[in-house]
Amino acid sequence: MSLVDIEKVNTITSIGGGPIGGGWSAHFLAKGFKVKSYIHSMDEYQDFMKIINTAWKSLKGLGLSDQASLDNLTVTSSLEEATYNSEFIQESAPENLSLKQVLYKKLGDLVKNNVVIASSTSGLMMSDIQKECSTPERTIVGHPFNPPYLLPLVEIVAGEKTSVEYIDWLKKFYEKTDKVPLVLKKEIPGFIATRLQEALWREALYMVDNDEASPEDIDLALKNGPGPRMSVQGQCMAFHVACGEGGMATNLDQFGPALKLPWTRLKAPELTKELRDKMVKGCNNMSKDTNFEKLAEKRDSMIVSVLNAIKLNK
Amino acid sequence: MSLVDIEKVNTITSIGGGPIGGGWSAHFLAKGFKVKSYIHSMDEYQDFMKIINTAWKSLKGLGLSDQASLDNLTVTSSLEEATYNSEFIQESAPENLSLKQVLYKKLGDLVKNNVVIASSTSGLMMSDIQKECSTPERTIVGHPFNPPYLLPLVEIVAGEKTSVEYIDWLKKFYEKTDKVPLVLKKEIPGFIATRLQEALWREALYMVDNDEASPEDIDLALKNGPGPRMSVQGQCMAFHVACGEGGMATNLDQFGPALKLPWTRLKAPELTKELRDKMVKGCNNMSKDTNFEKLAEKRDSMIVSVLNAIKLNK
Repeated sequence: MSLVDIEKVNTITSIGGGPIGGGWSAHFLAKGFKVKSYIHSMDEYQDFMKIINTAWKSLKGLGLSDQASLDNLTVTSSLEEATYNSEFIQESAPENLSLKQVLYKKLGDLVKNNVVIASSTSGLMMSDIQKECSTPERTIVGHPFNPPYLLPLVEIVAGEKTSVEYIDWLKKFYEKTDKVPLVLKKEIPGFIATRLQEALWREALYMVDNDEASPEDIDLALKNGPGPRMSVQGQCMAFHVACGEGGMATNLDQFGPALKLPWTRLKAPELTKELRDKMVKGCNNMSKDTNFEKLAEKRDSMIVSVLNAIKLNK
Repeated sequence: MSLVDIEKVNTITSIGGGPIGGGWSAHFLAKGFKVKSYIHSMDEYQDFMKIINTAWKSLKGLGLSDQASLDNLTVTSSLEEATYNSEFIQESAPENLSLKQVLYKKLGDLVKNNVVIASSTSGLMMSDIQKECSTPERTIVGHPFNPPYLLPLVEIVAGEKTSVEYIDWLKKFYEKTDKVPLVLKKEIPGFIATRLQEALWREALYMVDNDEASPEDIDLALKNGPGPRMSVQGQCMAFHVACGEGGMATNLDQFGPALKLPWTRLKAPELTKELRDKMVKGCNNMSKDTNFEKLAEKRDSMIVSVLNAIKLNK
């Protein structure tokens, strides 16, 4: 069966009445799609609409597409109605494996088998979720970051039975809706962004546990330290640019031994030549032909924009 | 001897010709102070002025104080001249313990003993640095985040011999120059912000080492996922607000078991009742009387400002 033409996708199903399902619904509405949202029971309708309305304010602030309208939203507690003639499914049901397995069994039969079904799961593996599904090749993790109507990242992770053509389709489709998709090379627990965040979070819990810091200290440190930089530069490029002309190579060659210091509870991997070269190559790829000074200037000017934006909104 | 009157501080010494020393010099110049910068050799003068001039562009973007002028800068390679009649010293010499110990021995004798000497060290302990100093009670870590002329955080960490009155002075003084100081409760390696960042960084290195992610993947994930949120909300409040009315209590009670999952190489601490309560109390303190909806709205509107600022500057 041929793939759905991305340019012609018109109607999207969003499954789930919580902040993630509601957030996705709002996002797709803002991009001009017709959205059919499935909620577990119509008793949840008021709460669901609260999420949509809150998100809508921010989405207006970011800019709606020409066709965007809340009138394009249908809310139903019938899975059949929600998925009927839909051209893309974003599933954000509760994080419970057996519940999702039952759901994907149903969806596998209900939804035309060339339509991609993406799961917002942050903690489960698609290889497990798709086990009981009769058409698993188009089921894929599409994990957003909260709030899903604002943060651009979506992590795409295939299960064992997922087909590569659908991964490619999903990546292009998210891009078309102004998301920034990241296709994972391997199916690992926690994916990439949550895994990085989780390492930081666990270190924070240790510090609070040992009275080395309070939650207030943690948040103040993040917001005023790495935070404003992390929105314009990832950690690899942050170290690359901080080390001047020498970049990541200087960072690793000079501060490599510091990786052995007890600066966190997480022990560092062995800094092999191979790992060093991968890091250096990646940073060189990202900086392309731009020299150190230009990179630092761009970083700085973007941080200034971010800091001024925050100041104005205080 | 009485403390220096913070309102009357006029002349500051910045020691170090690298990006941190130069960054601090530019910061204090932008706040209207006279700055005497010590660099190791006048051969480094051109490179040093490059740092100042690059920083100055951004500082103009953030807004200079009325008296701010590059004419208020003196650069010298004489430590005596740099520290003469100075009312505050910010030291950013190379990260080498014996070098710093020798330097603090000199400074202890050179600098009037009521003048605070703050070290930008990110990796050394003040208890070690101040060992050979004859007047150690006014020597304190004042660790900025790179770039120091833009990011507001400064971590203040006392050594064993530091006096509490000087810690208090330093906190107030940094605040007066629009920095956001964080006084650490304990002298721990890596302090708070770097320690959190380092946990994330080590997890990133593991992922690259195991071909689970490339440096490009890591940076794309951070910039488009946690990044834009972390500049307006720390990780504790991010989880607090993400969990709705129940806040951090819901987060820990519901997702506590997930801390045992292999979502990072860093094992979590035991989630005791005591740790749980500390986290909840901290988040409640931060949210004050603001209800969940208002907190989410504020978060969203600030993220929108940040995203729009980044978009405009792309």
